[in-house]
Amino acid sequence: MPLARIEIPAGKPAAYGRDVADTVQQALHAALGVPMAERFQIVTEHPPAGLIIDPSYLGIVRSSEAVIVQVFLNAGRDAPKKRLFFRTLADALHERVGMRREDVLVSLVEVQRDDWSFGNGEAQLA
Amino acid sequence: MPLARIEIPAGKPAAYGRDVADTVQQALHAALGVPMAERFQIVTEHPPAGLIIDPSYLGIVRSSEAVIVQVFLNAGRDAPKKRLFFRTLADALHERVGMRREDVLVSLVEVQRDDWSFGNGEAQLA
Amino acid sequence: MPLARIEIPAGKPAAYGRDVADTVQQALHAALGVPMAERFQIVTEHPPAGLIIDPSYLGIVRSSEAVIVQVFLNAGRDAPKKRLFFRTLADALHERVGMRREDVLVSLVEVQRDDWSFGNGEAQLA
Repeated sequence: MPLARIEIPAGKPAAYGRDVADTVQQALHAALGVPMAERFQIVTEHPPAGLIIDPSYLGIVRSSEAVIVQVFLNAGRDAPKKRLFFRTLADALHERVGMRREDVLVSLVEVQRDDWSFGNGEAQLA
Repeated sequence: MPLARIEIPAGKPAAYGRDVADTVQQALHAALGVPMAERFQIVTEHPPAGLIIDPSYLGIVRSSEAVIVQVFLNAGRDAPKKRLFFRTLADALHERVGMRREDVLVSLVEVQRDDWSFGNGEAQLA
Repeated sequence: MPLARIEIPAGKPAAYGRDVADTVQQALHAALGVPMAERFQIVTEHPPAGLIIDPSYLGIVRSSEAVIVQVFLNAGRDAPKKRLFFRTLADALHERVGMRREDVLVSLVEVQRDDWSFGNGEAQLA
């Protein structure tokens, strides 16, 4: 896997969450070589009180449309690869759903290959 | 702890989430020696749009009943121990709630013993 | 960042979640030196079935008001610093919203500086 936890504001059109999730997977594929079918995502809508995001930290102006994408993935990508993923994702969300690049927040968490089971009680990557 | 985040499809009988959660704890106990009372779980129901799980990656056929169990736990279990947990959990969910073994997805995230507070502002495992 | 995932019982007054979230940020600032504006939080309310917390593990009596605060933060804080955060947070939640200190559960997950994007597709801490 990666496993992606995608947190979006509530009240968007029905297709919005799916479009964002599709785009996250495409960016993982394009930037990090994750297979398109290695897809495991949790998309959660939040009322305004549920997503608390500073509107100006580091001089970046964030709106109420900001999203948080947290990806748990295998260790081993270096800083340039991670940066490439951030850039690819922000650009793709901007192009696909019109999201402001300032509104794309990303958190990565590295794990090991033996930390996954894709089903059947097996550790397919170990 | 471990801390378990258990993501299940919405619309199941009321007892379903609890049964799944009980089974997760029993598998942690049986396979990894976690005390039964060291139990901290978050169970969240998701509409179909909220759980996006590839239906055939690696040739495993997953259904709309698939669940994601993410466990944050102390580092130190080796690959065979993790594999034992995956197998124990898939078997137990199959026996207890009739879940297909193909539908049991697991993500582990290792942390350190000083990363937990069980209450009272103390670091009980440090 | 840190990124904080704050899990609270449903049914509290509207301001409760915000007060808890404010307090988490203040404790990160006071104990760990996190800037007040480096704030990214997800607050989720759960029905009783969604938060399963052992009521007496290690002799600590926990109530149905217990919360789980999981913080993803950069590695590098030692055990005394983490303990200071736990203590600061439990004290502050007690003072600010009347929470019992026994009901404050904390999970930390360490990541690297290149694991974050605060917007614009950049890795601001790398």
